[in-house]
Amino acid sequence: MNNRLNRNSEIPLYQQIEQIIKEKIVKGEWPAGTKIPSQRKLADIFRVNRSTVTAAIDELTASGLLEGKRGGGTKVTNHTWKSLSAVRPLDWTSYVRSGIHRPNSTTIQEINRQEFNEGMIRLGTGELSPELLPYRQMKEVLAGAEAEKLSLGYEEPKGNRYVREAVAEHLKRKGVNTSPDSILIVSGALQALQLIAIGLLKRKSAVLTERPSYLYSLHVFQSMEMRLFGIPVDESGLDPAFIPACKKQYGADLLYTIPSFHNPTGRQMSEDRRKELIRISKAYSLPIIEDDAYGDLWLDGPPPPPLKAFDQDGSILYVGTLSKTVSPGLRIGWVAGPEPVIERLADIKMQTDYGSSSLSQWAAAKWLAGGLYEQHLATIRKKLKIRRDAALRSLKAHCQAIATWEKPSGGFYIWVTFHKPLPLNTLFERALKKNVLINPGTLYDKEAKQSIRLSYSYASISDLEKGIRTVAELARELM
Amino acid sequence: MNNRLNRNSEIPLYQQIEQIIKEKIVKGEWPAGTKIPSQRKLADIFRVNRSTVTAAIDELTASGLLEGKRGGGTKVTNHTWKSLSAVRPLDWTSYVRSGIHRPNSTTIQEINRQEFNEGMIRLGTGELSPELLPYRQMKEVLAGAEAEKLSLGYEEPKGNRYVREAVAEHLKRKGVNTSPDSILIVSGALQALQLIAIGLLKRKSAVLTERPSYLYSLHVFQSMEMRLFGIPVDESGLDPAFIPACKKQYGADLLYTIPSFHNPTGRQMSEDRRKELIRISKAYSLPIIEDDAYGDLWLDGPPPPPLKAFDQDGSILYVGTLSKTVSPGLRIGWVAGPEPVIERLADIKMQTDYGSSSLSQWAAAKWLAGGLYEQHLATIRKKLKIRRDAALRSLKAHCQAIATWEKPSGGFYIWVTFHKPLPLNTLFERALKKNVLINPGTLYDKEAKQSIRLSYSYASISDLEKGIRTVAELARELM
Ligand SMILES: Cc1ncc(COP(=O)(O)O)c(C=O)c1O
Ligand SMILES: Cc1ncc(COP(=O)(O)O)c(C=O)c1O
Repeated sequence: MNNRLNRNSEIPLYQQIEQIIKEKIVKGEWPAGTKIPSQRKLADIFRVNRSTVTAAIDELTASGLLEGKRGGGTKVTNHTWKSLSAVRPLDWTSYVRSGIHRPNSTTIQEINRQEFNEGMIRLGTGELSPELLPYRQMKEVLAGAEAEKLSLGYEEPKGNRYVREAVAEHLKRKGVNTSPDSILIVSGALQALQLIAIGLLKRKSAVLTERPSYLYSLHVFQSMEMRLFGIPVDESGLDPAFIPACKKQYGADLLYTIPSFHNPTGRQMSEDRRKELIRISKAYSLPIIEDDAYGDLWLDGPPPPPLKAFDQDGSILYVGTLSKTVSPGLRIGWVAGPEPVIERLADIKMQTDYGSSSLSQWAAAKWLAGGLYEQHLATIRKKLKIRRDAALRSLKAHCQAIATWEKPSGGFYIWVTFHKPLPLNTLFERALKKNVLINPGTLYDKEAKQSIRLSYSYASISDLEKGIRTVAELARELM
Repeated sequence: MNNRLNRNSEIPLYQQIEQIIKEKIVKGEWPAGTKIPSQRKLADIFRVNRSTVTAAIDELTASGLLEGKRGGGTKVTNHTWKSLSAVRPLDWTSYVRSGIHRPNSTTIQEINRQEFNEGMIRLGTGELSPELLPYRQMKEVLAGAEAEKLSLGYEEPKGNRYVREAVAEHLKRKGVNTSPDSILIVSGALQALQLIAIGLLKRKSAVLTERPSYLYSLHVFQSMEMRLFGIPVDESGLDPAFIPACKKQYGADLLYTIPSFHNPTGRQMSEDRRKELIRISKAYSLPIIEDDAYGDLWLDGPPPPPLKAFDQDGSILYVGTLSKTVSPGLRIGWVAGPEPVIERLADIKMQTDYGSSSLSQWAAAKWLAGGLYEQHLATIRKKLKIRRDAALRSLKAHCQAIATWEKPSGGFYIWVTFHKPLPLNTLFERALKKNVLINPGTLYDKEAKQSIRLSYSYASISDLEKGIRTVAELARELM
């Protein structure tokens, strides 16, 4: 909206703003009942003084287009339409509120928005820093496109065959033997979870997972009325000894786990534990989703083979992705599992988006098949290790007296737990005011009120240091 | 599986096949209970005689890995696992059957599969023929990638700003004034429908649509327990006079329409009818989804402006896509509507797949912003027109005595209705045997038992002629 203001015009800024807002209302972009952005936010957007915004809002309120809401905020009135048409205008608000899928938690919505504000130190972001993303290589991949090899049509339900073959080869290098027919290409690992939620489970199903877990920060299963149950974790990972009781009490239908470089704890499941988990889940006919988003990002040495490598009878759905290693924007991930399951998921994928971008699939095949992926991994492992060590140094310097954490041996995250309770929301807000964005532990476990998830993959090393120092100071004030 | 056969080996082919299937079972890709492909199909896959397959299956049955199913078919047994582990193996079958989302109709599943068989004459396919897809231009777009302009990270919730600006400009040329803030980029128009289904409606909601309609061939709304009601169509399009009664009887919550070059009928809603529809839907507070997938593909002259161009108070969600004009594989579409609705849909999109491929978004921006799109449209309009006219000529030559149809003024489809009832399933099967793939009318309206949807966009002109002749002969036999 901002670039529509003309600062050299004779029309006062407040009148221009009034006009812009009026148009939004008249064109129906802000329909009756819409809560408009706060005055502070509008001042930010238009880069004007708050008083200029106030003047505009006052005019619009006087002319009956806006009204102050009880409990704060300003919303678009119904009056205009009433007088024009004598009909109640369409009430989108009730539509927006009544959809089946739950909204993101307000904290995550706020984080999603703030991440696109410049100047933020993003200590929570679970994504490679732009300086680690392979822009140059991707440009070369694209430049090498041959018209004959591109595929611009709708793809096969399971995904382009070349990518599936490349993924099968990639999995073989990890000890997982799967044929391309048992692989589904998805638009990132998240979509795999979404398809599993609507494709394989009844409403009210019980899903077990580590606690804390990435899964708690999503609503994929909960929006379909499924129930999540958290299983305690020790230094070897999720403790499968809890499974029998869970199964008995809640009737567990599925177990979701991130065995390597867990999000958010950074932990790694030991090889013995992996075997034990498979043994127990088999005894209890409990299928497993293994999310291996971070498995290739080891920093000190490779993790044990994936659970799927020990899977004898197809009770594991293995999920992988290029998001954490090559590019989240590519939106390419995969699921490997028994063919009937893969076919069911492929059928649902066709029904929800007709398959993943064929450009992305084509690029993914180039990355995986040509050795480019392994080369790039070697580079980012080195760089991530430097970042991890820098973050650990900053933590030691600023947080030793107030918190504990473990050294992760791979992935992106350090789970920092403060010694004493503190109001995490306030910490989040105050950090935000100082342009530092953190991920509160409560996103991953309602009870984790003393923890935050720190990511060393995104912010620059100097920002990591600065951000950690800031958070430490704020935490100290609040404890 | 086929390329694992070694035709020069001393091991007989049937033993090799036995081994390949055994591995699939042992690796868990075909878990207990899986129904394996028919012998005919396996013979196709391995390109061997049926008797070779039979020999392999017999061996596997003898060794207890497979068993004949009552009612035909062969499935993987439970025995092996029982004797090995004394535990009931994981029963994926019940998972595959009990998911919330409905499976595609078996006809559509069959079509999805057959489309990737070489040598098929695809008379039903709603997609540009490879010879109309802009491979050369896409290669040039990719070759022109500048590393600095690419975006490889996760994108903003509503989609990359450049694409949204390009889409806003594109819509302006159609008389639709929308700001980029009111636009959401989606992975194709289908995904827009999926997001609307899980984001804006309660279970049991009532959705009105043309009858027949593309919407009936999908399960996006039905899988969320919503009810679809068909509204009759005349030569000016959907007849809004039926809305009041529908609203009263079923409590209509949403109306979905394809006003320009309707799928499957090819019809066009007149301008007066568009205005009338808006008037009535406003009077009944009925929001509209306008699906404009084919609007740019006019052949004889531009259609009236989109409904959205007449929308005064934001009661229309406008859906567009590049699938039918540039490339379905790109998976890029958009929704334009009131900002609070767009934000809600963006939030759900973030929760289901973290946004659309940034490569595709970047390419889409290049297409829309640079004039490339309009140039390409001019070319394919000419070519589609030639195809349409050829299809009409073939129809006249072969079907005049047995069917009726209308000349579509744009889009891909001709809705052909036979004079007399005939068993559509048999027609479908027999056509398939002659390598002709058709879309039965019942996919779009359960009652349309005498119609088929013919597409002139995919098959070559000579195949169109050949395919139409074949279908006419078969239909004549069956009528
Ligand atoms: C454990 C885990 N799984 C899946 C995802 C989603 O990844 P994608 O971008 O492939 O959807 C993430 C991203 O944060 C993750 O941490
Ligand atoms: C009317 C209509 N809408 C939407 C779609 C889906 O298009 P997309 O590929 O953009 O998801 C189709 C494709 O057949 C269609 O005919």
